Amino acid sequence: MDRADAEARRRAALAIRQKLLPLLKEIEKGNPPKLVIPKRTFSNTNFDKEKGFLVMGEETLERHLLDAGEARRFMQTILMASIIYQALVENEYPTIRDLYYRGKHTITYMDLAGKVKEENTWDEQDESDAVLRDIEVMTDLLREEMLILSKEKGKMVGDMRIRSGPDVIDLSKLGHGAYAIESTPDLIEFLDVNAEFVLVVEKDAVFQQLHRIGFWKQYKCLLMTGAGQPDRATRRLVRRLNEELGLPVYVITDSDPYGWNIFSVFKVGSITLSYESERLATPKARFLGVSMTDIFGDKGKKPYLTAEERKNFIIKAKDADVKRAKDLQQYPWFQTKKWQREIELFLEKKAKLEIEALVGKGLKFLAHKYIPEKIQGGDWIE
Amino acid sequence: MDRADAEARRRAALAIRQKLLPLLKEIEKGNPPKLVIPKRTFSNTNFDKEKGFLVMGEETLERHLLDAGEARRFMQTILMASIIYQALVENEYPTIRDLYYRGKHTITYMDLAGKVKEENTWDEQDESDAVLRDIEVMTDLLREEMLILSKEKGKMVGDMRIRSGPDVIDLSKLGHGAYAIESTPDLIEFLDVNAEFVLVVEKDAVFQQLHRIGFWKQYKCLLMTGAGQPDRATRRLVRRLNEELGLPVYVITDSDPYGWNIFSVFKVGSITLSYESERLATPKARFLGVSMTDIFGDKGKKPYLTAEERKNFIIKAKDADVKRAKDLQQYPWFQTKKWQREIELFLEKKAKLEIEALVGKGLKFLAHKYIPEKIQGGDWIE
Repeated sequence: MDRADAEARRRAALAIRQKLLPLLKEIEKGNPPKLVIPKRTFSNTNFDKEKGFLVMGEETLERHLLDAGEARRFMQTILMASIIYQALVENEYPTIRDLYYRGKHTITYMDLAGKVKEENTWDEQDESDAVLRDIEVMTDLLREEMLILSKEKGKMVGDMRIRSGPDVIDLSKLGHGAYAIESTPDLIEFLDVNAEFVLVVEKDAVFQQLHRIGFWKQYKCLLMTGAGQPDRATRRLVRRLNEELGLPVYVITDSDPYGWNIFSVFKVGSITLSYESERLATPKARFLGVSMTDIFGDKGKKPYLTAEERKNFIIKAKDADVKRAKDLQQYPWFQTKKWQREIELFLEKKAKLEIEALVGKGLKFLAHKYIPEKIQGGDWIE
Repeated sequence: MDRADAEARRRAALAIRQKLLPLLKEIEKGNPPKLVIPKRTFSNTNFDKEKGFLVMGEETLERHLLDAGEARRFMQTILMASIIYQALVENEYPTIRDLYYRGKHTITYMDLAGKVKEENTWDEQDESDAVLRDIEVMTDLLREEMLILSKEKGKMVGDMRIRSGPDVIDLSKLGHGAYAIESTPDLIEFLDVNAEFVLVVEKDAVFQQLHRIGFWKQYKCLLMTGAGQPDRATRRLVRRLNEELGLPVYVITDSDPYGWNIFSVFKVGSITLSYESERLATPKARFLGVSMTDIFGDKGKKPYLTAEERKNFIIKAKDADVKRAKDLQQYPWFQTKKWQREIELFLEKKAKLEIEALVGKGLKFLAHKYIPEKIQGGDWIE
């Protein structure tokens, strides 16, 4: 086990101890034990204009052991904290799925009438996941910082060297393959980089195409994909590349509300998990396209597609897309002229377009005209 | 572009020319053009006991241009072949999605009554994908051999050096990350390997856990994951490792019909796409577990789980699982004593178990007891 790993364990174990040891003191004093946990509700989620991402508000809730309605969740929280603590000190790497299994068992107890009853610590993973999130906000540690692993699908290539564990990895020497991003991107050390920007492509297949024709070499960028809705490790790494190395980040998605939402998750964070944003959001991320004005043009802007191509490539929006767009139209971070224009155009044309349609015009069109021209011309949306 | 890539292009372009040039000659002679295509139907799919995988039978179908019912598909086939040919000679890397876009357009024509009509080359990707499969069987080239890329999610680590494109990649020096397998695994050159077997883990998160504790170092294996239902590149690479390097391949999946099916795809191929198996199937692959007898024990075999653990970890099978199991029970390659016992036990207990449940007992249990003991004891199913 390397030093970065060991230090992360020490830090996380300490945070858990510091948060939970006071409970023991209260019990010794004869006080009824309670936990104070920041509220993860939508009403306690705010968009921080200054920071540019979603943050949790100040509201907290108390959870009492000696309250019949709260005792179960109280005990679940302590159980989960103890499993994580144990995994930390025993150099284990649990996943959220096996945290669920590790804690799952049946408790036999006698009720007030003297009847023997059984109850499960938790039944479904939904329950143990919610408890884990409570621990994340309570300790102010993301689960990655507690060395909890998860399924990851992000990839990256580019002219950059990183240290991960005991190894130095040259991200420019991976052939046609790529670096599969690790679960704990905070343990990565950036050694040296020769790139001018980060390009995040929504789709894995398009990432592979751009990689294959050497896009990142020619245009000096770090090429990444989150393969659809990005996982936390990919988002964290994008943030670190932007914040620590000062590299501008451009995101390319399909031209539809689902694509905008992916961009939104990169930029301001996830609405239902605002506590992550402090570390995972990249408020300076730029939406490079595919934008509605790329498709249809606008005042002073020529479209990238001909009328014929529009006819062949455009997909008709569904009712669910329109509904989604109307929701996004209200979000505080979409209250800019460009975003409102983008959403209006969508609602007017009821049209969607996939990145692959641009590749349909030729991979060279995407790689050597569309992307460089958009970046050089400053044609992105903040 | 590297030499292997250029050679693959030359080979594929030649195969397409050889298959389609005779058409021109027939037309010059005044004969009505037709294509002869191997039948991809279920009835033309056989399990070849000798080879140990699914193969296509001898049946072919003819497709005539001058038959109103076949003209559309005939022309689609020629269109697709020409798009692929063009991409090959122009050094493009299309995906199946952008092959769809490249070919999609509207044809205007006049019918016999002199009325102007419109028809799309194809409407949905289903249609263009089916045409692509026809070209695969017609030319005897998998799409990867035609440099057609696709979304990939397979990963690999281990003490091995490979050449991919211009680079030599050391798969033992990837830190906590991994090598994301490329779309065209036939272009990979194996340089040197220090491993005694290949371990394929169904789930990405478990792959990461085993990687993190250095399983592959300690037990001298190449560690891989297909992240669920494996893609073609992962299957092809597994096959090559087995066939060319002679490494035994062990597969670990969840203990349920879905997991058995994943193993089955690795071993004999996909039932609906039997023409792939010749290159993608690994008939010598071994199902290491998790097996029903691991959970419940058997004559002369102690179970790996206690009664208490079974109670906590087992998931009740659904009707769909039972139906699936009954289908699998009939497959020719499951007609062995061990597989029949496995399926019977499942149908009797109606119980499923996830790999993560074993990690719930401790990652060390999975890594240092379960896997090595099963391999050393020969406790797998062919």
